[in-house]
Amino acid sequence: MILFDCIDAGHEKNDRKIVTLRVAVSKEVFDHESFHLSALQIPFSFMFIDSLDEIEILEEFDIVQMASLGDIGLAAAINLLSALTFLIAFAVLRIQPINDRVYFPKWYLKGLRTSPLHSGAFVSKFVNLDFNSYIRFLNWMPAALQMPEPELIDHAGLDSAVYLRIYLLGLKIFVPIALLAFSVMVPVNWTNDTLKRSNLVYSSIDKLSISNIPLGSNRFWTHLVMAYAFTFWTCYILKREYQIIATMRLHFLASERRRPDQFTVLVRNVPPDPDESVSELVEHFFLVNHPDHYLTHQVIYNAKKLSSLVAKKKKKQNWLDYYQLKYSRNQTERPTKKTGFLGLCGNRVDAIDFYTDEIDKLSKEIELEREKVIKDPKSIMPAAFVSFRTRWGAAVCAQTQQSRNPTTWLTEWAPEPRDVYWNNMAIPYVSLTIRRLIVAVAFFFLTFFFMIPIAFVQSLANIEGIEKAAPFLRAFIEIPFIKSFIQGFLPGIALKIFLIFLPTILMIMSKFEGFISTSALERRSATRYYIFQFINVFLGSIITGTAFQQLDKFIHQSANEIPKTIGVSIPMKATFFITYIMVDGWAGCAGEILRLKPLIFYHLKNTFLVKTEKDREEAMDPGTIGFNTGEPQIQLYFLLGLVYAVVTPFLLPYIIVFFGFAYVVYRHQIINVYNQEYESAAAFWPDVHGRIIFALVISQLLLMGLLSTKEASNSTPLLITLPVLTIWFHRFCKGRYEPAFIRHPLQEAMMKDTLERAREPNFNLKEFLQSAYIHPVFKGGDEDSESEAMSEEGEQEPVLVQTKRQSRKNTPAPSKHSSSLSSPLHESADKHLRP
Amino acid sequence: MILFDCIDAGHEKNDRKIVTLRVAVSKEVFDHESFHLSALQIPFSFMFIDSLDEIEILEEFDIVQMASLGDIGLAAAINLLSALTFLIAFAVLRIQPINDRVYFPKWYLKGLRTSPLHSGAFVSKFVNLDFNSYIRFLNWMPAALQMPEPELIDHAGLDSAVYLRIYLLGLKIFVPIALLAFSVMVPVNWTNDTLKRSNLVYSSIDKLSISNIPLGSNRFWTHLVMAYAFTFWTCYILKREYQIIATMRLHFLASERRRPDQFTVLVRNVPPDPDESVSELVEHFFLVNHPDHYLTHQVIYNAKKLSSLVAKKKKKQNWLDYYQLKYSRNQTERPTKKTGFLGLCGNRVDAIDFYTDEIDKLSKEIELEREKVIKDPKSIMPAAFVSFRTRWGAAVCAQTQQSRNPTTWLTEWAPEPRDVYWNNMAIPYVSLTIRRLIVAVAFFFLTFFFMIPIAFVQSLANIEGIEKAAPFLRAFIEIPFIKSFIQGFLPGIALKIFLIFLPTILMIMSKFEGFISTSALERRSATRYYIFQFINVFLGSIITGTAFQQLDKFIHQSANEIPKTIGVSIPMKATFFITYIMVDGWAGCAGEILRLKPLIFYHLKNTFLVKTEKDREEAMDPGTIGFNTGEPQIQLYFLLGLVYAVVTPFLLPYIIVFFGFAYVVYRHQIINVYNQEYESAAAFWPDVHGRIIFALVISQLLLMGLLSTKEASNSTPLLITLPVLTIWFHRFCKGRYEPAFIRHPLQEAMMKDTLERAREPNFNLKEFLQSAYIHPVFKGGDEDSESEAMSEEGEQEPVLVQTKRQSRKNTPAPSKHSSSLSSPLHESADKHLRP
Repeated sequence: MILFDCIDAGHEKNDRKIVTLRVAVSKEVFDHESFHLSALQIPFSFMFIDSLDEIEILEEFDIVQMASLGDIGLAAAINLLSALTFLIAFAVLRIQPINDRVYFPKWYLKGLRTSPLHSGAFVSKFVNLDFNSYIRFLNWMPAALQMPEPELIDHAGLDSAVYLRIYLLGLKIFVPIALLAFSVMVPVNWTNDTLKRSNLVYSSIDKLSISNIPLGSNRFWTHLVMAYAFTFWTCYILKREYQIIATMRLHFLASERRRPDQFTVLVRNVPPDPDESVSELVEHFFLVNHPDHYLTHQVIYNAKKLSSLVAKKKKKQNWLDYYQLKYSRNQTERPTKKTGFLGLCGNRVDAIDFYTDEIDKLSKEIELEREKVIKDPKSIMPAAFVSFRTRWGAAVCAQTQQSRNPTTWLTEWAPEPRDVYWNNMAIPYVSLTIRRLIVAVAFFFLTFFFMIPIAFVQSLANIEGIEKAAPFLRAFIEIPFIKSFIQGFLPGIALKIFLIFLPTILMIMSKFEGFISTSALERRSATRYYIFQFINVFLGSIITGTAFQQLDKFIHQSANEIPKTIGVSIPMKATFFITYIMVDGWAGCAGEILRLKPLIFYHLKNTFLVKTEKDREEAMDPGTIGFNTGEPQIQLYFLLGLVYAVVTPFLLPYIIVFFGFAYVVYRHQIINVYNQEYESAAAFWPDVHGRIIFALVISQLLLMGLLSTKEASNSTPLLITLPVLTIWFHRFCKGRYEPAFIRHPLQEAMMKDTLERAREPNFNLKEFLQSAYIHPVFKGGDEDSESEAMSEEGEQEPVLVQTKRQSRKNTPAPSKHSSSLSSPLHESADKHLRP
Repeated sequence: MILFDCIDAGHEKNDRKIVTLRVAVSKEVFDHESFHLSALQIPFSFMFIDSLDEIEILEEFDIVQMASLGDIGLAAAINLLSALTFLIAFAVLRIQPINDRVYFPKWYLKGLRTSPLHSGAFVSKFVNLDFNSYIRFLNWMPAALQMPEPELIDHAGLDSAVYLRIYLLGLKIFVPIALLAFSVMVPVNWTNDTLKRSNLVYSSIDKLSISNIPLGSNRFWTHLVMAYAFTFWTCYILKREYQIIATMRLHFLASERRRPDQFTVLVRNVPPDPDESVSELVEHFFLVNHPDHYLTHQVIYNAKKLSSLVAKKKKKQNWLDYYQLKYSRNQTERPTKKTGFLGLCGNRVDAIDFYTDEIDKLSKEIELEREKVIKDPKSIMPAAFVSFRTRWGAAVCAQTQQSRNPTTWLTEWAPEPRDVYWNNMAIPYVSLTIRRLIVAVAFFFLTFFFMIPIAFVQSLANIEGIEKAAPFLRAFIEIPFIKSFIQGFLPGIALKIFLIFLPTILMIMSKFEGFISTSALERRSATRYYIFQFINVFLGSIITGTAFQQLDKFIHQSANEIPKTIGVSIPMKATFFITYIMVDGWAGCAGEILRLKPLIFYHLKNTFLVKTEKDREEAMDPGTIGFNTGEPQIQLYFLLGLVYAVVTPFLLPYIIVFFGFAYVVYRHQIINVYNQEYESAAAFWPDVHGRIIFALVISQLLLMGLLSTKEASNSTPLLITLPVLTIWFHRFCKGRYEPAFIRHPLQEAMMKDTLERAREPNFNLKEFLQSAYIHPVFKGGDEDSESEAMSEEGEQEPVLVQTKRQSRKNTPAPSKHSSSLSSPLHESADKHLRP
């Protein structure tokens, strides 16, 4: 057998087309003077392969890169340049008062800022004229790093603070690994001349990689020892981090503040009863089975129609506000509008009267619908939020099985009120399992059939493909600069475009699957997104990138051959992934901080749509961290870093730069921009941990595959213990730390209960919990009741960060009032960040 | 490539040695007149194979059987005969009064029988002279079937009753499948002439099997539809059974009787505290965290030395009883004994005085040791049994996490007192996870390196192997009868012998792993045993049985080739497995009922060792069901049945006979013989269910592999949905029914609590629980305290079947007194079974 792949189907050099091939020849043949691999640089034709089938497989070369060092240098330069451009643009734009709401929306939403900080002349309302501030254009970076972590948790929630720790974790893992790799492994790789002897085209990157080590060399022991060192270091850091975050979570949950979800349990699948309503049934059941602890409950209404009516009314109210404002400015003329399509045709009527009428009509309709919903037993879903007298009672109920039939009376700790996803409350058990099957099958097809378009685009994304498809472009493409540009950028961008459409589909899948909190939806979407990225970006790039034509071969390969095949391709793809990191990571981060899309949309809306102050508040789109897309993206870097740590350490600095830069950028964004929609108290950490472990195991398997083709197969038994130990480590961590993210220790609950009872013996808990878990539509419906509820909460909780509901864009949002609640605690944070 | 296996390396026929080969040839070659497969029946030599490498792979034959129909007939006859012999021997032996304690020990242990039922002349004390009873020699069968299930549960416990349902489940699954297979599939298979045309040696069994269908025939649709039908039927029955057993378990647990384990939770990994003892710490912790429910607790002592002392004392006491009995019979002479080795040398002393002294000494020593154990804080393990006022309190504590650190204060529902495995109480969490890793690795090596000796023995177990190894036996072996005998029996027996040594090793592994109840130990051992059997008996027989030399090939095959390779071999191994079922199943069952080993041991002990009545009670060895070996054995039949249902339906009747016969035999044994050591309330059912599902999935994968070699690969997409659906079904069942086996519904607990409070408001629960979870050595140490405890229990519980401790052979056993507790409820059961 002869391993014979076409790696690069064409450079032109001195009028000859050079085909780069991976060839396996016997030692004897190789050593023979007359055999020159350069002889294989023949015109573009494969006919001769058949005649070579006598050569035995003994040696392999996996050297030739898709892009040369020059290409990478160019790509790096371009990316650095674009990142720098973005940063400068950001530095200039952010200090313009007119953009203040784009770059500091969080402070507006928290009510700590109502107008740009600079005031003075009319012009300076829009343009910053203080030229000193332009000089200090990078001073947001230290500012972003200054806020200490406890304050950050207070300011943006634990989720955000822990999310930032993922970047830090990347630095903690890869900086020491990179130092070790460059001080030990790079010299070992560099001081060989395998590549020189091979007569093949190679770049200096390859001299630093494992490809430069001759077959069967004892130097592979270095790589083996390094693999052990990297694994142990990663596991050590992972364990430490898990411990810290579990402690942070418990500390956060046990924090002083009383929150409704501490006392509340969500009960689903209440069995139907012919004699009692759901509400009665729930009350009776819990009065009987938790007699000393049950306090109250809230049924869940199916309020889809009601929320659409409320949304309609809100829109009309907004128009009314607009016309009233207009009238108040110009009292001479009452504003009018046409009743027809988009206000372009139909009768002209008095706008204020028209909208007042409409709103009255809608108000009545809403009132009717609301009464109908509340009275009609059919609109009550078989689920309820049950509240208990003590945290202990809630902890007990959430962790135990209630009824003999494990598919009814399902209890779980209630998500935070903002976190509830109301539409999935009433899915029966059998339906849930069927949905899960359907989604699993659909996801399988999505993952594996999505590969076809990606591979297709990537196959176009080489010079020859483009020249073939569009011969008229040939002259243009052949300009060296353009050529390098295309080779450096195109594959990464093609992937990126494909991936933009994905998160929405995955989110829809998760919603269909029936999770009942936004945080769970995002966590599940993140898992799927990661699997998708692993198969399509990571494996897809390695397998189809080199030769889409080889896919068939891979499918029919044996299980223990697959790591080999992938392992062999890995060193060749280093440059591709370096450009990917630069495009996706570096430029992506810089793009994130510039917020070009929200900036443009805000100004467009501000110019054309904004009618009232409320509109302006809605026009600024703070966005969220976006766990479902952000975290899998980071995980891809962990995967690349761990896989290439032993193979091509040259890739590590790029990853370190990404983690460092992204840390600063996202810290800035979290402090100044993002407005997290919910607080899950870092419930996502077990997922993060699990995926890094997965990346570690994959890197070990691929290294095993690679080394076994390097005639270092005596290292296999030593390498196979690594994944065994890693998986064991994962199970250990799972047992040791995961319960902190799933279960609820009674000791903590009891401690908190006792403390609170001693401190406030007469606190009316029932009243506190009464309206916590009401469907937003019943609160936000008319503003009086809502602001009442808000002020009620405000009375009890002078410092109320997480439970403010002003910015829930995804759920039918209540009005944006009452954001004038100001907290003295946050003044200091504000000072740090004032530009 | 050419598929070319040596299947059977030698029959002699007309002076020529016939080698049977599996050959793949092209259609054209096959159809050609001049090509006769019989041409391959050449002298024993493989030299010619190299010259055949031009033939393409297009067609395959997997026809030739290791043993012909005649061999199977003979094996069946021998097995039936031996089974019948065993049964007649049993029928004769069991009605001899002298064997009464061997065949009805359960009734003695339950105290319902103290002497053989027949009384009269001296002779009839030993030999049954009532010749009528000999005629009705099979009447134990209907008798065994008569006892209704609720009574059986009452008599032998739920574990036994549910265990019997596994056999019933086998009948329920396979009888309809067999009917369907024989009415639809067998005619479809039979009416082909592929085998006839092939000119190969085949038996009539093969005409009934899938081998008789030509390649690419449309008739494979029948098999496809049948695979669906069998899967749906199996799943339907499985679901129904799971439901029934979950209900039975809940009903059993909620039964009227008050049991200590209903109120008790086992707490492990109590963290060390410098200021408080374990006992104080436990009390304080639960008083604080379960203030309304905590009642009392019992610490666990490390009493290994004490139990050895107690065992020593018991032995001496027995000798004393013996000499006292001797003296009371013959008052003229006081018995004497020598003090030296085995009573053979040393000074002659008065035996009664000697033993009285010895016992006094030991009693003092025990008292000292006991005090030391109780006082010394080091002998207290960091674990305790904590009892609660209500079942509700215990259910809550067992299901919740107690402390912030999930590795301390681990709570789980306490096993039944008899079920506790005392040695594993004090293993810390980290040690537990390390032990798990070690056992996993050890089990891996055990499983895969155990294959070598089996394969070696099996390779000897063919005629040629024996003739080669021992040429002097050739003449003897070549006798047709002997030859058939060897071919039919040897492979099965070789396996059987190997497997005898296994369960003990697996049990030691489980003990090392740190389970804390005997039932959990047995469940884990059963899982391991099943995995071992699957790999070594099932796969091992299929792969190494045909050609051990092919093992290398299989290892290097691709993942999707493996089902094909195994699938192709499956029809060929049908006859091997038929003989295996007959030897292991049929004859094994008959051997089980004869109880030859306990019979011989009992009579030997009775003659030479039995000194006192207590000794006699101990000499009868009732044994247990032996879940750890019995269940995996049954599962192997499920696996065989499901795999061969579509391929070779001819195997099904053998399995049905096994299930029916075994059901009757084990029902008889459970009623009359076995004395279960513990009651886990059918906690093993999820395992049973899971393994049948596993067998189902394996059968589907192998069928897929087989059909894809039959040029029916267009059926693959239809077949691949089957395992997907099956696994989904498993997950559904897991969610729906498994909680009944793991968790404890609060509703049930509350109901029971309320009922009991109303019925017995003044019951002293604390006293009831006080001594329930004391290490047996503290109870059994001196008999007064034990019999006290027993009578205490007796007072409270007039019908006390499960908690009697008379027969705990594995734990340091208390004395066998107090078995005179008689229950009127069981009189009727006794009547049914009186011979």
